[in-house]
Order: sequence, then structure tokens, then C-alpha cells
Amino acid sequence: MCAFSYFTKLKSIYNLDMFIRMTVQIRALAEASNDYIPLLSNASALLNENLENINWVGFYLVKNDALQLGPFQGKIACVNIEKGKGVCGTAYEKDEVIVVEDVHQFPGHIACDAASNSEIVIPLHRDGKVVALLDIDSPLTGRFEKKDRDGLVAFAKVLEDLINWD
Amino acid sequence: MCAFSYFTKLKSIYNLDMFIRMTVQIRALAEASNDYIPLLSNASALLNENLENINWVGFYLVKNDALQLGPFQGKIACVNIEKGKGVCGTAYEKDEVIVVEDVHQFPGHIACDAASNSEIVIPLHRDGKVVALLDIDSPLTGRFEKKDRDGLVAFAKVLEDLINWD
Repeated sequence: MCAFSYFTKLKSIYNLDMFIRMTVQIRALAEASNDYIPLLSNASALLNENLENINWVGFYLVKNDALQLGPFQGKIACVNIEKGKGVCGTAYEKDEVIVVEDVHQFPGHIACDAASNSEIVIPLHRDGKVVALLDIDSPLTGRFEKKDRDGLVAFAKVLEDLINWD
Repeated sequence: MCAFSYFTKLKSIYNLDMFIRMTVQIRALAEASNDYIPLLSNASALLNENLENINWVGFYLVKNDALQLGPFQGKIACVNIEKGKGVCGTAYEKDEVIVVEDVHQFPGHIACDAASNSEIVIPLHRDGKVVALLDIDSPLTGRFEKKDRDGLVAFAKVLEDLINWD
């Protein structure tokens, strides 16, 4: 195996381990309480501690068919986002995971932190309907590769199943 | 004026300015929404951006006469705190601002982050009753001096008056 492949494989294993470890940790945190406020607050902290090269991680909550800021880690953020607006509003409207390599190329991108260059947004569901979004920004262009997407989507699925949304 | 007094005065003016600036900013953020989740989330971010030498800042919310973790910035944190337990539980029980110079000397201190050495806890009220606590930890012993206490208590008062707790 050439050195490049070896380190790529190592990094892949490391990332897999990181997502498995985070899944174990969020399950343990949910045992203390599965209420959505403490669990989303600790999920933001957990992701922030583990993901490299990110500058904002947190949640938007669906309220009156629009998005309202939830718990997060990073600089102060946009409070209200309309359905269909920017990356988050589009992910909500389409109920789709959206990965944006360069946010400056995304039509209608809402710039909260000028340092952000790439973004991933993942819908969270209750009874099949979107009730929240996990939103992560990075200062690097193209930060979120397929393995990050897969790991984060799996993490978000575990999280949405654990949460008591009442 | 000797150089020491001059710099002490400058620092005092700087801190005053910082707290006034944060008060202006939190009022502006409340105009976007005064719901407690987005406002406490952005308040944590605002304090984290402005306060030096802190490693955790956020809120505990009163639920069933105990404390439950709310929005914060820092490492993952204790989810549930009983009334009367640790610094937060004591501040809740007594409805008092508590400044702890060295948390390791505080009876029953709950260690969430081993890096924390000093702490300030400030109750927030609704109709005269404690409904939340602002909790800030520092890696420095004796981080929270009188001017910090005064500035943070004033900030917390503005915040509790702005919030819609429903």
C-alpha cells in the first residue's frame, strides 16, 4: 500500500471511530434527559469538540412553518429564517440533506459569520415531518466530504430518534 | 496618576464599555425574537465572544423544581442539577448571585469541566421567581471580580426583562 492510500485509510478509520464514539456519547447523554433543549445543547458541544475545521455548529427549530435559532456553538447567529430561504430554508422546504462546497455560490445564501465558506444542513424529523435542522459551517471550502456527510447523517438519525420533542 | 492606576482605570472603562455594548447587542437580538431558546442561545454566544478567560458560559433552566441544562457554549455539561446541590443548585435554592473564587473549595462542587477553577452564577427571574441561571466558568482562580459581577448582574437583569419565558 502506498503512503497516500495508507493515510487516507487511516483517516477514514479515524472518522468512522469518531462518529461511532459520538453516537455512543449522545446515547449516554440522552439517558440523563431526552428533552430536546439539553440534548441539542450537548449535541452541539459534542460535535464542536470532535469536528475539525468548523466555525459554527447547532440547530434551527421549526416554528410556525419557519426556522428559529436553537442551541448552538459559535458566533451569534441569524434568529429567523424563512422556509425556502438560504441553505437552511431550502433544506427545510425540500426535506433534503444539503452540502454546499462554497456558500458564496449558493443563491440567496444567508451570511451569519463571514468566516463560513462551506456548509452542511441535515433535517431532523418527528413522525416523518421536519422539526429541526442540524447546521454546520466551516471556514474551509469543500470541508464536508462524503464520509462526513454519511457520518453526520447517521448521527442526526440517532439524535432524532432519541429526542423527546414535546 | 501612576501607571498602575491609569491602566486599572482604562481596564475598568473597557469593561464598562464591553457590558454596555453587550446590553445594546442583546436588545437588538431580542428584536428578532424574544423567545427564550434563541435569545439564551445568542446570549451565550455574545458572552463567549466578549469575556476573556472563560471556558464555559450558558444557562440552566428551572424544571420541576430542579435545574436542567439549557443553551451554552463550552464542553458537554451536566444535564440535571438538584436544588441545593453544587454552585448552581445553591444559587437557585437561595436566589442569590454566587461568585466562587476557587470551585475546589466549594462544598459539593459539581465538576463538569476539570479546567474550571472559578465560577459565577446569577439567577434570572420571571414574576419574582427564579426560572433560569446564568453560569460562567473560568480556568483562572478568582476570575470574577466585583466589576465583572456588577456588569454581568446588570446584563442578566436586562436579559430576564427582555425574554418571553412561555
